[in-house]
Amino acid sequence: MPECARLCYILNLMTATFEPINNGGATSAQGFSADGVYAGVKTKATGVLDVGVLVSETECAAAAVFTTSRFKAASVILGQKRLEKGQAQAIVANSGCANAATGQKGMADTISMAEMAASKLGLTAEDVLVASTGVIGQRLPMEKIENGISNLKPTANGGHNFATAIMTTDTKTKEVAVKTSGGYTIGGAAKGSGMIHPQMATMLCFLTTDAKVEAGFLKKALKKAADVSFNLISVDGDTSPNDSVFLMANGMSGQKVKEGTEEASLFQEALEAVCIHLAKAIAADGEGASRLIEVTVRGASCLEDARIAARTVVSSPLVKTAVHGQDPNWGRVLAAAARSGAELVDSKVDIYMGDIRLITGGVALPFDEEQASAALSNPEVFIALDLNLGEHIATAWGCDLSAEYVTINSEYTT
Amino acid sequence: MPECARLCYILNLMTATFEPINNGGATSAQGFSADGVYAGVKTKATGVLDVGVLVSETECAAAAVFTTSRFKAASVILGQKRLEKGQAQAIVANSGCANAATGQKGMADTISMAEMAASKLGLTAEDVLVASTGVIGQRLPMEKIENGISNLKPTANGGHNFATAIMTTDTKTKEVAVKTSGGYTIGGAAKGSGMIHPQMATMLCFLTTDAKVEAGFLKKALKKAADVSFNLISVDGDTSPNDSVFLMANGMSGQKVKEGTEEASLFQEALEAVCIHLAKAIAADGEGASRLIEVTVRGASCLEDARIAARTVVSSPLVKTAVHGQDPNWGRVLAAAARSGAELVDSKVDIYMGDIRLITGGVALPFDEEQASAALSNPEVFIALDLNLGEHIATAWGCDLSAEYVTINSEYTT
Repeated sequence: MPECARLCYILNLMTATFEPINNGGATSAQGFSADGVYAGVKTKATGVLDVGVLVSETECAAAAVFTTSRFKAASVILGQKRLEKGQAQAIVANSGCANAATGQKGMADTISMAEMAASKLGLTAEDVLVASTGVIGQRLPMEKIENGISNLKPTANGGHNFATAIMTTDTKTKEVAVKTSGGYTIGGAAKGSGMIHPQMATMLCFLTTDAKVEAGFLKKALKKAADVSFNLISVDGDTSPNDSVFLMANGMSGQKVKEGTEEASLFQEALEAVCIHLAKAIAADGEGASRLIEVTVRGASCLEDARIAARTVVSSPLVKTAVHGQDPNWGRVLAAAARSGAELVDSKVDIYMGDIRLITGGVALPFDEEQASAALSNPEVFIALDLNLGEHIATAWGCDLSAEYVTINSEYTT
Repeated sequence: MPECARLCYILNLMTATFEPINNGGATSAQGFSADGVYAGVKTKATGVLDVGVLVSETECAAAAVFTTSRFKAASVILGQKRLEKGQAQAIVANSGCANAATGQKGMADTISMAEMAASKLGLTAEDVLVASTGVIGQRLPMEKIENGISNLKPTANGGHNFATAIMTTDTKTKEVAVKTSGGYTIGGAAKGSGMIHPQMATMLCFLTTDAKVEAGFLKKALKKAADVSFNLISVDGDTSPNDSVFLMANGMSGQKVKEGTEEASLFQEALEAVCIHLAKAIAADGEGASRLIEVTVRGASCLEDARIAARTVVSSPLVKTAVHGQDPNWGRVLAAAARSGAELVDSKVDIYMGDIRLITGGVALPFDEEQASAALSNPEVFIALDLNLGEHIATAWGCDLSAEYVTINSEYTT
């Protein structure tokens, strides 16, 4: 993505109640420090960071959203258990090995990895979470992991190293933070689709805030924010056993956010902006992608319909290849929405690409082909459908499908 | 697909109770005739057949299964209405134009197309069905259609011309027929994914039999056969507004098939074999495909779980690219099954590619990589999952995902 497109995301973060922090990330909130080091898990090439840690000075209220797949990595199973109490203080992460489909031994490795980090940081192991991404079916190289952890030196400026250590075939780090008018900060880092050994798209996200938030509300707020961001992006429709979004709130700004208050609405809004920013960055950096696709469905009968229709359109291989070829092929957009399961009456649908209305009431309008094709040549492509049935609206993000995606994922790797 | 692979299909059709007819197709059953002519709808190049008709000497019991998309082409809407009475005598078809998203005027064109065919064949228009495939959002060129219909000369040897006239980017015709021990014949022709103006995969299938079957049973038998064949194939997960599977039974063999009898079971079995044969031929000839992928899920808790898991695995872009690259990447297979919605316990799953078991009880086995990769180099690739939870089994078919698919579908066309 060129810088101009990235600027658009930043601008979206500028509202009356919060604003972006320059070079913000997972350690922008007070009391959080992080680091990333080379441990040789991802590649033998020296200097490629692959083990990292994100830690708070004090214990945090903590919540997470994990993969909905029935196939869960050891780190996910451990995280679900440890977060039952709604508390955590650190997350240790690695790229290069997903530690999934590794059975009881893999689970012992993940527990051991958390213990190593706890010992290094002077914490109790119960307060340490684990996140892994990379090849499935291989055991973690525990000696390398141990060596990496021993070299970690978390600092308040270490967010970028941490964001780098979680990358797989990501072409850039994904980091953001906002300062709210309430006096606290929300930030985070994420990684997206693709790995050094292409196996599947794993999404990891680590969010931090220095607001003081009770664990029960934190969990609800994170679920709600994930539903309008990470759950509405698609690179290729596949779900990883390692997908995890973590949120830790250490309260060190002294600003309380209590459920049901106006401040809670502001917190929710800022958290959603941060999540949407990172989600869009993941979609734009999908394997082989050259364009971000944003699909908005409005006029839906219910929210679920708007979401499923937007997600189905942005995931359709035929829509993705059409955008790749700058082909204003509204037939594919309509067909994808119509098979999504959302209530839809084809004779009522309007479809727009960029600012151009291509069909109205389900019937094609004459349009300037060059102009329509030009609207699809931007780094961000906007497609909108008005179902004209109700008041509900949703936006989903994805990327075009290129021959490079096939090449990346066809390489012999096992 | 090389001929050897095609042979396998043919062999599947050889059972104790029915056998394949050499060069069989839509007119193998007694009393059916067909033709296909050049009308200039699909391309200006003279000689490319694009309008066809399939007709019975006598009125038929008739049934169809249509697209489940909420966006339906005019021909589908007309077909649903005309088949309420369970009778038909002819189907007129064209490629090159889907006549979808064309509103009231498009519906008038489809009705008019049926009237032209009825007039040419000396039938009442109510007994004529229509099937269209091709570009969405464009009106039918009615003058060309009329001219084409006037040139049709249906004969008992015309099945191949008809099968050719319905092709879009199909690289070969898809035809088959079997003769049953009950003394009647079931045959048909189909077209698959891709069009001359790539818009979306439309699946059309025209089945005929000279068995005497009551319309109510015919409808049930066709639905059941479609559920184990056409509803279990996937090229790219997109559903067209024109998808249609027709079945006409004219009774001219004199052989009665009555619901609930042993003969009905035989009829069902032969009908399913014909449908599976045509469905596999469609999957193998998917846009840009070089391999047919067959995914069998067994040990599922219920039939629906087996079907959704098999379909999700065979549709996964990551599985499809792995097969394209001959990568025995079982992690992607497990991940796709696990997100399918089917009940699955990852620690119980076995996965096979070809004859090689790659994981058992959710844990990777050591395997010979060259041997596993070789199993993926065949024109037909077999993947099996045993969920070890129950007794249900299903098979789905698809194809690999190649860079050529992206090229075909990225071309600027509108």
